[in-house]
Amino acid sequence: MSILVVGSVAFDNIASPSGRVENILGGAATYFALAASYFAEVRVVAVVGDDFTADHELVLKRRGIDTHGIERAPGKTFRWGGHYTENLNEAKTDFTELNVFEQFQPKIPKTYHDTQFLFLANIHPTLQAAVRREMDGVRLTGGDTMNFWISRTPDELAEMLKLVNVLLINDTETKMIARESNLPRAAQKVLAMGPQALVIKHGEYGATIFFGEGAFGIGHHPFRAPALPIEQVQDPTGAGDSFAGGFMGYIASQEQLSREVLKRALFYGGVMGSFAVERFGTERLQSLTREEIDERFQVFRELTHLE
Amino acid sequence: MSILVVGSVAFDNIASPSGRVENILGGAATYFALAASYFAEVRVVAVVGDDFTADHELVLKRRGIDTHGIERAPGKTFRWGGHYTENLNEAKTDFTELNVFEQFQPKIPKTYHDTQFLFLANIHPTLQAAVRREMDGVRLTGGDTMNFWISRTPDELAEMLKLVNVLLINDTETKMIARESNLPRAAQKVLAMGPQALVIKHGEYGATIFFGEGAFGIGHHPFRAPALPIEQVQDPTGAGDSFAGGFMGYIASQEQLSREVLKRALFYGGVMGSFAVERFGTERLQSLTREEIDERFQVFRELTHLE
Repeated sequence: MSILVVGSVAFDNIASPSGRVENILGGAATYFALAASYFAEVRVVAVVGDDFTADHELVLKRRGIDTHGIERAPGKTFRWGGHYTENLNEAKTDFTELNVFEQFQPKIPKTYHDTQFLFLANIHPTLQAAVRREMDGVRLTGGDTMNFWISRTPDELAEMLKLVNVLLINDTETKMIARESNLPRAAQKVLAMGPQALVIKHGEYGATIFFGEGAFGIGHHPFRAPALPIEQVQDPTGAGDSFAGGFMGYIASQEQLSREVLKRALFYGGVMGSFAVERFGTERLQSLTREEIDERFQVFRELTHLE
Repeated sequence: MSILVVGSVAFDNIASPSGRVENILGGAATYFALAASYFAEVRVVAVVGDDFTADHELVLKRRGIDTHGIERAPGKTFRWGGHYTENLNEAKTDFTELNVFEQFQPKIPKTYHDTQFLFLANIHPTLQAAVRREMDGVRLTGGDTMNFWISRTPDELAEMLKLVNVLLINDTETKMIARESNLPRAAQKVLAMGPQALVIKHGEYGATIFFGEGAFGIGHHPFRAPALPIEQVQDPTGAGDSFAGGFMGYIASQEQLSREVLKRALFYGGVMGSFAVERFGTERLQSLTREEIDERFQVFRELTHLE
């Protein structure tokens, strides 16, 4: 089945203890689309500038990704620079140039309107809500947000939360939205605001999914997928978006929308995130095989599997 | 089978968002002994002062714990005061009065010399090493340490590490000992210093066990046990020692010393840690049943179990 992702395409400068790269293709929509492309047909709505070349587009096209929804605008593509110190958990931003992304108004091609799954990457919640309303035939909508929108546009965010089925955010964002420091209690508060399921990404410790009452089946227990301890982390940029791509991609590849599918999707999210960080930018995500992905899925599964 | 724990018995003042308690029984050996008592016969070597009453001793005796190794010294018992703010992950120490614990020289009763399992709770590494040498017939030794010894007595710690089979510490301590910020690489460096297995406790995210080459069976993958997201954390004090008690206790209850046993032990460690934090001090650990423990073990197992 098909997934539409709406979000940023960017050029990044990244420095980490493993090295330094400049002007490499990045952005939430790019990481998401590449990760999801191993599971489902992927369509992208984004905006780029004059500096986005046919070679850049080919990175997506080679993975079978539909790029008709990538709008060309006069000017430069969104640019971001950041670096990581020895503790690779947090990026320090060196610069952010929004460029054409500042005036981004998602335009969804007519041919995309039959898409079954939708992922709203991190953009203004009002734009996210508008896209979701336009795509009113989707089976399931996933969404992301960030601290900036949580503190600056809480009302718009609250509207958006009513329109997503699964919200994918991290521990800090969950506590910020809920204004509650205990994670399970914060999760319940976020679920009460709209989503049927909440995926909380814990970085190197994996992710937990909390389900709303009666959502996707019965039971009230959360589910946790661990992450593989990785010896060679070159560049954590895009790990969360790659996680979302693996998660949504796996869901889109299944007939059922059951809890068991969402649990397995949580593992596939972790798998794609773990590949993404092994190389700078999207390099590792460009040339995987489904066999490599399923091999790592087994490793992740055995990581917590008791006989 | 039997376990000997050598460590502190203390009286604690604790404040958290859930309330405040004074002069309650605590200390690493106390938490460890209570947690382990649900799995094996437990013996304790510690030192207390005149203020340690028969009622305090009864808390241990009621759980069948052998208290002959608790030495009475003139003076006061070790006292610690600390508090937790909204973020319950870290204790702020208000005061530490070592009292009789300052001159602690572990004295092991003759009747303890046939003990099969040994746990060296967090005391001076030279004392830990001396106890381990005296108990030369044990099947397996577990050990703990802390940042104070890692930075102040690295040589003594290195000696101690050669004498323990399983070291149980947290992420920060692992990175400090190894002087390496990547956790899996740091784990390998610590294993190279002596222990056959390293258990890294991640607090609310569970724990990971790394195995030395060929230790406890074959395979080179680590194993991770998640922790249950807990809504009501009253007091995190003693969670790590309770984890160690569940971990070592389960191992002592089994015939085999296999990887599968160590993996299950990691889950039981998480289970006992999760009970400990539900009430102030050792309250919850005093009155559990084996049924409650096994019920939670199943919940932990299902938390990451794919069909």
